[in-house]
Amino acid sequence: MKRKIKVGVIGAGRMGKIHSENIVRYVPQAKISAIADLYIDKIKEWAEDLGIEKITNNYKEIIDDDSIEVVFICSPTTTHSEIIIASSEVGKHIFCEKPLDQDLYKIKKAINAVEKSGIKFQIGFQRRFDHNIKKIKEFITNGSVGKIYMIKITTYDIGVPPIEYLKTSGGLFLDMTIHDFDVARFLTGEEAEEVYATGGVFIDDALKELNDIDTAATLLKFGKETIVLIDNCRKPPHGGDSRVEVLGSSGFVSTANDTETTASLATEKGVYSENPLPSFIERYKYAFIDEIIDFFGAIIKDKKTSVGTIDGLNSVIIGKAATESLKENKPIRIKYKF
Amino acid sequence: MKRKIKVGVIGAGRMGKIHSENIVRYVPQAKISAIADLYIDKIKEWAEDLGIEKITNNYKEIIDDDSIEVVFICSPTTTHSEIIIASSEVGKHIFCEKPLDQDLYKIKKAINAVEKSGIKFQIGFQRRFDHNIKKIKEFITNGSVGKIYMIKITTYDIGVPPIEYLKTSGGLFLDMTIHDFDVARFLTGEEAEEVYATGGVFIDDALKELNDIDTAATLLKFGKETIVLIDNCRKPPHGGDSRVEVLGSSGFVSTANDTETTASLATEKGVYSENPLPSFIERYKYAFIDEIIDFFGAIIKDKKTSVGTIDGLNSVIIGKAATESLKENKPIRIKYKF
Amino acid sequence: MKRKIKVGVIGAGRMGKIHSENIVRYVPQAKISAIADLYIDKIKEWAEDLGIEKITNNYKEIIDDDSIEVVFICSPTTTHSEIIIASSEVGKHIFCEKPLDQDLYKIKKAINAVEKSGIKFQIGFQRRFDHNIKKIKEFITNGSVGKIYMIKITTYDIGVPPIEYLKTSGGLFLDMTIHDFDVARFLTGEEAEEVYATGGVFIDDALKELNDIDTAATLLKFGKETIVLIDNCRKPPHGGDSRVEVLGSSGFVSTANDTETTASLATEKGVYSENPLPSFIERYKYAFIDEIIDFFGAIIKDKKTSVGTIDGLNSVIIGKAATESLKENKPIRIKYKF
Amino acid sequence: MKRKIKVGVIGAGRMGKIHSENIVRYVPQAKISAIADLYIDKIKEWAEDLGIEKITNNYKEIIDDDSIEVVFICSPTTTHSEIIIASSEVGKHIFCEKPLDQDLYKIKKAINAVEKSGIKFQIGFQRRFDHNIKKIKEFITNGSVGKIYMIKITTYDIGVPPIEYLKTSGGLFLDMTIHDFDVARFLTGEEAEEVYATGGVFIDDALKELNDIDTAATLLKFGKETIVLIDNCRKPPHGGDSRVEVLGSSGFVSTANDTETTASLATEKGVYSENPLPSFIERYKYAFIDEIIDFFGAIIKDKKTSVGTIDGLNSVIIGKAATESLKENKPIRIKYKF
Repeated sequence: MKRKIKVGVIGAGRMGKIHSENIVRYVPQAKISAIADLYIDKIKEWAEDLGIEKITNNYKEIIDDDSIEVVFICSPTTTHSEIIIASSEVGKHIFCEKPLDQDLYKIKKAINAVEKSGIKFQIGFQRRFDHNIKKIKEFITNGSVGKIYMIKITTYDIGVPPIEYLKTSGGLFLDMTIHDFDVARFLTGEEAEEVYATGGVFIDDALKELNDIDTAATLLKFGKETIVLIDNCRKPPHGGDSRVEVLGSSGFVSTANDTETTASLATEKGVYSENPLPSFIERYKYAFIDEIIDFFGAIIKDKKTSVGTIDGLNSVIIGKAATESLKENKPIRIKYKF
Repeated sequence: MKRKIKVGVIGAGRMGKIHSENIVRYVPQAKISAIADLYIDKIKEWAEDLGIEKITNNYKEIIDDDSIEVVFICSPTTTHSEIIIASSEVGKHIFCEKPLDQDLYKIKKAINAVEKSGIKFQIGFQRRFDHNIKKIKEFITNGSVGKIYMIKITTYDIGVPPIEYLKTSGGLFLDMTIHDFDVARFLTGEEAEEVYATGGVFIDDALKELNDIDTAATLLKFGKETIVLIDNCRKPPHGGDSRVEVLGSSGFVSTANDTETTASLATEKGVYSENPLPSFIERYKYAFIDEIIDFFGAIIKDKKTSVGTIDGLNSVIIGKAATESLKENKPIRIKYKF
Repeated sequence: MKRKIKVGVIGAGRMGKIHSENIVRYVPQAKISAIADLYIDKIKEWAEDLGIEKITNNYKEIIDDDSIEVVFICSPTTTHSEIIIASSEVGKHIFCEKPLDQDLYKIKKAINAVEKSGIKFQIGFQRRFDHNIKKIKEFITNGSVGKIYMIKITTYDIGVPPIEYLKTSGGLFLDMTIHDFDVARFLTGEEAEEVYATGGVFIDDALKELNDIDTAATLLKFGKETIVLIDNCRKPPHGGDSRVEVLGSSGFVSTANDTETTASLATEKGVYSENPLPSFIERYKYAFIDEIIDFFGAIIKDKKTSVGTIDGLNSVIIGKAATESLKENKPIRIKYKF
Repeated sequence: MKRKIKVGVIGAGRMGKIHSENIVRYVPQAKISAIADLYIDKIKEWAEDLGIEKITNNYKEIIDDDSIEVVFICSPTTTHSEIIIASSEVGKHIFCEKPLDQDLYKIKKAINAVEKSGIKFQIGFQRRFDHNIKKIKEFITNGSVGKIYMIKITTYDIGVPPIEYLKTSGGLFLDMTIHDFDVARFLTGEEAEEVYATGGVFIDDALKELNDIDTAATLLKFGKETIVLIDNCRKPPHGGDSRVEVLGSSGFVSTANDTETTASLATEKGVYSENPLPSFIERYKYAFIDEIIDFFGAIIKDKKTSVGTIDGLNSVIIGKAATESLKENKPIRIKYKF
């Protein structure tokens, strides 16, 4: 058997676990050598079942382990920049969960470190690997859509996250809509020039104290002539909802929600069918797998990663502009230089 | 057989013909006595086939005919106010095509005349009678939707109208989006407080000289807490498109496009199915019938009409605010008093 | 105005009324001069509202009226042959409801009379004019389907008809499946060679005394190499259901049910959407209109009617063979000569 | 880490490989110790990549290895009985691919051996674990469907298998329709009493020499009052097709095909969407995983397997009766005692 790429996973929360399991199952060329998490007791059994030998509460042990070539950063957002810099300096490839960071200057430093070291860096915008989004991109790339007039993205979650989480999440646009910003950038291949955002607290009054919102509509202008419309809701009645439409000069592409089954039941009361797959965990199950297969592919073949530092940076810039637009109730020109 | 309500139709363009044929076919209690159009020669055979006895190029002959109880105003928009006032003064009930007028002060005078005379007045917002829109309204009224968070309306036409027509149409928001404004007012039962509109000339450069646009996204705030998102395109690749979604606290309602048939053909190349019914003529064929049945019902039973002067007025006010927002690139608070 | 074709309608039950109303509304070239029904009192107001001047309880008055050119036969099945013969002999064109008759020898005599007189004759297989069925036929005719391997037809009704009606209906295959036999003949352009039918009384035990069934599956071989599968149910839980699939060498065509609206409501319990349009009255509303427009078109342009005597005859022959197959529990070769 | 159940896989053709990979990825409690296949060279690299240490061309080495508790039989059908008996005698649990065997007497002997030894035995009818089929079963079990009147199963493959394979496959009904027979047995919970089958060679004339067919319609009576309609085609124009409908007294359940994405592209030519997932490999990808998870669950918890010897036996009995019906062109009563 060939030599395996050794991986260290930092942070074993929800995303850390998902990535770890996917590496074990779907990346035969890789092996997780170590995992770092503050709460070792909580993850011990799970990590052992996965065959991970080293568990530590100090991520620096991973940084210091020369045999580890790849780091997965799944720790809280505020730690991302620091770990990116530390990993870059010792030449480890990085897969980092989104958002890159909330502070643009910290992001800048982290990107500088990555670029200086020349390592592979991928940010966890998994939707670029979603079967439906990829198909839309294919229709755009192969000319079926033509010139893009408008993109409409609907993303609803399954519930308002815990207030404790929201306190440091950066707000709806940086926490949730950021994925939609990235999808729009991915599909258009262009940058957002202007954003107008509106929204409100329709569901959970506790958000008012955080100056956050639970429902929003965002209108962006991309490049010269593409309008992007995004609507978000933290807690719709029917669970998750994730659809995209692209209107172009030659084709109109749309996607429907994924469901667990295609079964429907017709009775005298009408036809019942299933709600969309609820949370992003189910909805993007295979995208989470494909993004890391793609990432390891870039390492093995020494190619550019599919989603890089600029994608991590610009999505945060748009999110901050949207937050400002909401506050000021006016369209904001987006500045990428700072 | 019972006495029939005598009707005079003013203007025998596309809408005048549709309404005339529908009256003959579907309103056995009514009879068209006379039709007025500047181009008698063009409509003579058609009118005779329908059994209309009097054809004139002077609409005042209809106004002066005391046996005529009802007037259908299907003439160019700029003539609406004048004919409304003339008809009101002689106590004829009025069915008037949209928009009521483009000039708010002329609208005000016309409304005053209608109110003074106490006649029945209905404006031609046929979508309120569309099977899909009515079903959505039913889900809202019966509590299935709960509190409305957001309404999304997509309306695409099948082509850019002739430049000659567009010169006096009032622009996209007054000519096309006005229907969507009315649908939003109908579904929410509230008034728009603020509007932000954007758009561009993506399809036909000739529009630039008219300061008009062919593609637009409009974002409105209705009442206190409802966001309305409208997207329009004059000429999408796939023909007409007309869908509505309503996100509420207890239910999410959506409609799909109507098609001519439900047939699909699967071959080795994939599955082919039909585009939406193309223009509003096909799409709202039955809504055009139901709106006049409803109108004559209001006359016969002496009830309030379903769509009145205020609906005609406020949709124009919103359209003008949207036009201003586009020009100024900022959200505009909508003023209903003037 | 041009001369109108005068029509006499015989039988003002459900179908007689539908045809009468459609003639008045949709066939401006025709005028109903007289209507015959045993129960004059029940139809008087309805007929007067439609503008029909003569109402009689003796259909012979229609036969004897030389000004009447066309007869619509909507009376009970057992009277069809006799009226066809009488109408043919005086040279009146005939539109006759299905089935032609239940007795093959009476059918033969009626057909002989029609052929001798050279009148136009159309049998009321309205599904040939249904939007979905026509589209399937188009895919077959234009070569999209290729050689037809298999046709699957699902037809469910909305309830078991009254026992009194069923006593003389001829049984499920002659009363209900006969439409499916005609659809199969229409789509293949071939004749059924063999039939195997099975079924049972699953819903209403009263049918057992009539030797009738309420649920059936019928398997036919058409021409050399086409299998036809039909499933019927008198009373499914969800109301009417009417779908067709065609599997061919180059294309697979399928149709979905028509619904009143396209609206769906998603709540925490799942997605609710509408049942199919319930009975054939709603489902084939426009097919009933188009079949008579087509019939009058054949008269006006002196062309062959689209559905003729052979279609009326052969569908009955298949129905009788299916009835025999059910009884004998074996496949039956179908004999068209007798 | 806990002790792992050691598994030997016999036969590393398509199914042997699928099961092996699924065991490695999805059954952490199991470990493949050895794999047997006549062509060692062809599978060596693949097996090593999976971490399988022992590769042999003699399946008896697996039988003789006392440390191996479970055998997966994925070898050619004609070898199944012999290996079942050998495995049973040494007390190894068995997962056996379908069909159990083609010879009923050999099946009987194999079943006797299994029953005598008391081992766990599961036959590879993976559709019982398919998301859509399970959902239908759930609607039946929870009473939503009520009394089952009719089941309709459509199964189309993506191509006629190689003639060499077909020579020993037992014919369409034993090779392909056998899955549908099992689905019908699973959903009804009853046994087939009678079968009538028809079909033909519409696609590949080479089948005529084998007395096999490529397209078939099968009509079964299950228990007292359920009709089952199955239609099969080896090579439809659109690739695989796999749908089920169940008509009952209270509910009508139907499933649609699974597709790779939900994207559709509307252009001026109409709407394009995807064909069904092509072969059973893609269509039942997750069912293949779930069936072995279920099987190992039965071993670990010492419970009855979900699909046992009787399911393997009776599906073959039905297949043989269908074959006879096709030959004799008459309905065949199915005998389960022999």
